[in-house]
Amino acid sequence: MQIKITGSGSYIPTIKVTNSDFGQHHFLNEDGSIFNMTNEVIAEKFVEITGILERRYASPDMVNSDMAFIAATKAIEKSGVDPETLDYIIFAHNYGDIKSNSIQSDTVPSLATRVKYLLQIKNPKCVAYDVLFGCPGWIEGVIQAQAFIKAGMAKKCLVIGSETLSRVVDIHDRDSMIYSDGAGATVIEATDEAGGILAHESATYSFDEAKYLFFGNSFNKEKQEDIRYIKMHGRKIYEFALLNVPKAMACCLEKSGIAITDVKKILIHQANEKMDEAIVNRFYKLYKMETPAGIMPMSIHKLGNSSVATVPTLYDLIVNNEIEGQSLNKGDVILFASVGAGMNINAIVYQM
Amino acid sequence: MQIKITGSGSYIPTIKVTNSDFGQHHFLNEDGSIFNMTNEVIAEKFVEITGILERRYASPDMVNSDMAFIAATKAIEKSGVDPETLDYIIFAHNYGDIKSNSIQSDTVPSLATRVKYLLQIKNPKCVAYDVLFGCPGWIEGVIQAQAFIKAGMAKKCLVIGSETLSRVVDIHDRDSMIYSDGAGATVIEATDEAGGILAHESATYSFDEAKYLFFGNSFNKEKQEDIRYIKMHGRKIYEFALLNVPKAMACCLEKSGIAITDVKKILIHQANEKMDEAIVNRFYKLYKMETPAGIMPMSIHKLGNSSVATVPTLYDLIVNNEIEGQSLNKGDVILFASVGAGMNINAIVYQM
Repeated sequence: MQIKITGSGSYIPTIKVTNSDFGQHHFLNEDGSIFNMTNEVIAEKFVEITGILERRYASPDMVNSDMAFIAATKAIEKSGVDPETLDYIIFAHNYGDIKSNSIQSDTVPSLATRVKYLLQIKNPKCVAYDVLFGCPGWIEGVIQAQAFIKAGMAKKCLVIGSETLSRVVDIHDRDSMIYSDGAGATVIEATDEAGGILAHESATYSFDEAKYLFFGNSFNKEKQEDIRYIKMHGRKIYEFALLNVPKAMACCLEKSGIAITDVKKILIHQANEKMDEAIVNRFYKLYKMETPAGIMPMSIHKLGNSSVATVPTLYDLIVNNEIEGQSLNKGDVILFASVGAGMNINAIVYQM
Repeated sequence: MQIKITGSGSYIPTIKVTNSDFGQHHFLNEDGSIFNMTNEVIAEKFVEITGILERRYASPDMVNSDMAFIAATKAIEKSGVDPETLDYIIFAHNYGDIKSNSIQSDTVPSLATRVKYLLQIKNPKCVAYDVLFGCPGWIEGVIQAQAFIKAGMAKKCLVIGSETLSRVVDIHDRDSMIYSDGAGATVIEATDEAGGILAHESATYSFDEAKYLFFGNSFNKEKQEDIRYIKMHGRKIYEFALLNVPKAMACCLEKSGIAITDVKKILIHQANEKMDEAIVNRFYKLYKMETPAGIMPMSIHKLGNSSVATVPTLYDLIVNNEIEGQSLNKGDVILFASVGAGMNINAIVYQM
């Protein structure tokens, strides 16, 4: 028995936000002092490092689980699975449903329940739960689906990654330019076909790293309210990722028994283009190789970092030939990898 | 190979809140109209139905993950397991860490990561994630730990249920008297001993039931702010639970192959004493039996409904002989059961 992705879907929000849309933002340093650079220069430097030109925000009438429902509907349709036969709906997110202009996370009932409700699934044996695992949540959800299938507890699972980071950003923090919204979903099934999940790797580094991503106050110290936002220590994350992600990818590849030269694509979480390039270069360096051209499809330029949604959305765009010069064919080996709050790292070697 | 609880721990918050502490609350109906009953009469009727005399609130200097850390430390100590050998930390909650006097849920990094950090565990292969599954979250976490062990992905898992419902209550809603705070934790291990988890059952009813528990505005319509609180349709939940929980328990027992007469204790989620009695009576009625005296240990009188913490705390109190007239001995069969937001129902037949 193998375990394969039998369908995927994504939802790319309609509101396009360009870097120049941040032109009027009043960016500050962490200590509240004025950032001594024009917004034009900030944007230029930002693009140089992250590669992000645009990002998408959910329209105000939608919440996280609404986006997830759209992506899920497409994934189910593509897979051809009868939704009533799903054993699990696993929804990876980080901040729940946050209404536009609210600061409260709505997490009860679980977002997985909301998607199940919107899909009008009646079967109570379709168990719906949410998993919180930082940006690597969707990959972790797939690993959990794999566990249920291997343990004989499931045959078909819907695994969703969906998030509205635009609703937890501090507009005085330049890092706010990184985050975006989106949803990706996949149906994971036990199958007699060859390929599928060949190996996985998962880790949580918390001893020194637990607070690299955290919930913190605005850089604008004049704000009186105790409102908190997504915050990160970017430099520390960069160094951490460079040190640990290539090793995790190599470890996963070794477990799979696949040769490095047989890896067709690396689908890595998109948080920072320079960081992703450095990770993949270091990964190939472990094998004394140059990074093959086109090995790492990028969606970050137009979509930013949509957390848990990034990797499944990237996969969905490629299988639908919506990323120029990129394609996936039967038998191709993909290496999925992600790093994020926790700090968590995971990877999957997957054969189409 | 069997899967057993090898250690448990709980944390019961220090702030005791009696029903008379609600004496000055200004209770309202859902439509904002004045509730036509003195608070004394409200409290009397409340005790009659729910059995709750007191509940516990976390002290203002603590958040959810702090309580969880204390319970986890005890569970690890009791199990004798080296924390560095844990494969998973699974943290069931519903609202994240909410600071006292805040309305924001802090969920990044995951609460499991925070506990791992506080436990000073270095091993990155100890994977820490959160699961949101309503009040049945701890039982679901145990079911997930079982899946990882059966799939060969883990040998030792720490499963926590911890919540601060006191920080999401509407003081104008009589249901606020039900909720409390607390933490329970267990170490789940693969073992060669007899017994352990014999069967499980899990379900999500969302088609009609998704919004029985929800995040809603205060009954006090004069409040201008759009702040939301835990809300429930109590009557609907009562009817739903009576209809579906006994059947789920019976289904689980049948899977286990254990005779009804061999069930020593039923450890059921404590949300309402009358409801729990009615559920267990209906369960025995399916076997044409009277409910055996003392079969259902109760903690609700003093501890209220602490959501995901209730069942593991109840288990921990009994194994430590802290509930009068109740004990558990090697070989005893327990039926764990829970119902809550989702609406989710689950059960485990477990042999000590």
